[in-house]
Amino acid sequence: MTDELLARAAALDAADPLAGQREQFITPPPAELLSYLDGNSLGRPLEATARLVDEFIREQWGGRLIRGWDEGWMDWPVLLGDRLGAAALGAAAGQTVVADSTTVLIYKLARAAADARPDRRTVVLDTDNFPTDRYVLEGIAAERGLRLVWIETDPSAGIDPAQVAEVVDADTALVLFSHVAYRSGWLADIAEINRVAHAAGALTMWDLCHSAGSVPIQLDEWGVDLAVGCTYKYLNGGPGAPAFAYVRRELLGELRQPIQGWMGHRAVFEMGPGYQPAEGARALLSGTPPILAMVPLHANLDMLAAVGIEAVRAKSLLLTGFVLDLADEWLAPYGVEVTSPRDPSRRGGHVTLRRDGFKSFLTPLWDNGVIPDYRRPDGLRIGPAPLSTSFSEVYQGLRVLRELLEKDPR
Amino acid sequence: MTDELLARAAALDAADPLAGQREQFITPPPAELLSYLDGNSLGRPLEATARLVDEFIREQWGGRLIRGWDEGWMDWPVLLGDRLGAAALGAAAGQTVVADSTTVLIYKLARAAADARPDRRTVVLDTDNFPTDRYVLEGIAAERGLRLVWIETDPSAGIDPAQVAEVVDADTALVLFSHVAYRSGWLADIAEINRVAHAAGALTMWDLCHSAGSVPIQLDEWGVDLAVGCTYKYLNGGPGAPAFAYVRRELLGELRQPIQGWMGHRAVFEMGPGYQPAEGARALLSGTPPILAMVPLHANLDMLAAVGIEAVRAKSLLLTGFVLDLADEWLAPYGVEVTSPRDPSRRGGHVTLRRDGFKSFLTPLWDNGVIPDYRRPDGLRIGPAPLSTSFSEVYQGLRVLRELLEKDPR
Repeated sequence: MTDELLARAAALDAADPLAGQREQFITPPPAELLSYLDGNSLGRPLEATARLVDEFIREQWGGRLIRGWDEGWMDWPVLLGDRLGAAALGAAAGQTVVADSTTVLIYKLARAAADARPDRRTVVLDTDNFPTDRYVLEGIAAERGLRLVWIETDPSAGIDPAQVAEVVDADTALVLFSHVAYRSGWLADIAEINRVAHAAGALTMWDLCHSAGSVPIQLDEWGVDLAVGCTYKYLNGGPGAPAFAYVRRELLGELRQPIQGWMGHRAVFEMGPGYQPAEGARALLSGTPPILAMVPLHANLDMLAAVGIEAVRAKSLLLTGFVLDLADEWLAPYGVEVTSPRDPSRRGGHVTLRRDGFKSFLTPLWDNGVIPDYRRPDGLRIGPAPLSTSFSEVYQGLRVLRELLEKDPR
Repeated sequence: MTDELLARAAALDAADPLAGQREQFITPPPAELLSYLDGNSLGRPLEATARLVDEFIREQWGGRLIRGWDEGWMDWPVLLGDRLGAAALGAAAGQTVVADSTTVLIYKLARAAADARPDRRTVVLDTDNFPTDRYVLEGIAAERGLRLVWIETDPSAGIDPAQVAEVVDADTALVLFSHVAYRSGWLADIAEINRVAHAAGALTMWDLCHSAGSVPIQLDEWGVDLAVGCTYKYLNGGPGAPAFAYVRRELLGELRQPIQGWMGHRAVFEMGPGYQPAEGARALLSGTPPILAMVPLHANLDMLAAVGIEAVRAKSLLLTGFVLDLADEWLAPYGVEVTSPRDPSRRGGHVTLRRDGFKSFLTPLWDNGVIPDYRRPDGLRIGPAPLSTSFSEVYQGLRVLRELLEKDPR
């Protein structure tokens, strides 16, 4: 059976139209890295990224110096936002910026939404959302006197639109959910949940951290009001890369974010008295844009735009489907459960495996060059990034995990 | 006289103990860059920065991947904060972090201060502070129902402690000023202004953007409560590099910043319900730290710590003193005024020259490889960064300016 699976990995690699992309990433020696399965935490760097960053430091920063701001940098937050919107978010130009961190952008957008609906006093979110989303909203609720309404999500299941329908009402200012759940990998039905929330007159905000660059997104078509996400997972922007924010065009003039800094001003270099927000998405900016940290995005968006998000998704489903097959065949006999959806239409880009004591497997896995993610209390997340991961790599990684399970005294 | 000044530039360069540092910066061909006089807007990159960043991308990000967080990255915000505190801020360890942008940090700290003094309803600032400081505080005032009390500063003069004494009272929650004024270069007397503000029971916050890495700072000794600053000017962190925040140790447990994200949580990877702030300066963090964008700081702090901020200041005063001499000798006859302090004890790291129509000089200066900064309505800021600027470079830059003035038909 193992031979059949190995042959299948090889066949999937041979038939993979994205196989060539993998060679464009910086690759550590095989002795150090056998299998990288954590693309949903930190994507790998492209060779083009290293080259572009070096050129940027020497020629742009070092050569153009302060002139760089006039010669293009000032436009990067909206330019890269528009490129990201086109390549990954289904967002027409003028609604997306790259800036800050996901956390800061959640704060800015959620505050703007709450302030825009002062007659509504609740915000709906779910107990399994990513910690920073929950923590930020707790803070906003405390400062604005809002009540948080929690949907109890089973971590091994997604958000049912019916659950949302039960809790939204005329008092709901905002709902905030993740497109792909960070633990289970459940893929939410954004369009349907938006319909439910909008029927109650609430604004909708989506955290796209675990889907952007992996799962096709249609923000405009799905009626999303607000969205945020990071660029360091499937978008390979590097550790702590800037985040992005989307505000639906119709809301850009209405919503006002609370950190009103010079870069969101209508006339940045007038430096006059009194803040006046810029037209459009620029008003989402606050401080000086993190230009150096944005350089990798240029290279990554080149690749994503060339390949197409649909091709990425097609490979992603084959990769996670292969993970499920290997888990069923190799790991289930050792008590490993799959806690992610088997239905491809509800599965994001990663698969979580659960077993008591999985925490103790992390170090031996790393020591063997196999790098999944660990999520308390006993989950291993397998997140094979389609652009940089081969099927044979998935095979190798789970083979090592199986061998550790074989040796486990339990 | 010109020959005498040229000889003086050469003599100053020959006697400059920091002359060797200049060779460690990336230098464009002289045909492209004759004289860079805008270190107070964007510092130049070190060769070591280009090398470290490339190594980081290939070996750390590309090689260690997600393991990098466990192997050190998580500590960078406080580690670099502490190094910065020691090298440039006079801050003992445990009070400074590198994070976000200056604007976002001003918001976080000013909100924390205002929330900590709910019985006090005013914030004092000055009309000549940097735009983002003013805009952020306007926003906070509107949202918290605070009143802003403006000290009218003459842009060609600094903040007199007596002006502060006139307006602070039992209703003042916070005063916010810049250490070095972004236009005039006036150096505020932090210790004395703090004494005045503290006598009224107000908290004090200082924007160090134009002084950090240029003017010695003693945050602990001067009784500063809160401080923020950027790292892309004299600290050479690159365009849009992360900022820093300082909160006096005694206040760290009391103040609570409003953007409560996962990286400021007491137990980041527990990912449990309910935000609980970390002990100490980590609670100032919100989102994922901008690791890639912090890499240049390692190189720059190596250099600054080795050289010492006092040596930087000594050269800075010689550089700006030389600018004043050249301005008096060459430019005053053409109607150019110096609007910065001549008194070295009140002069920051840059000198602003004023003349009607100076805006039209910017393009021809740039075309000739001379890069000062322009500030509306008619100021040219000359900001020679001590670590990367020679006296001959200052001479060459002002010589070109003089030639343009000679040709000016006015």
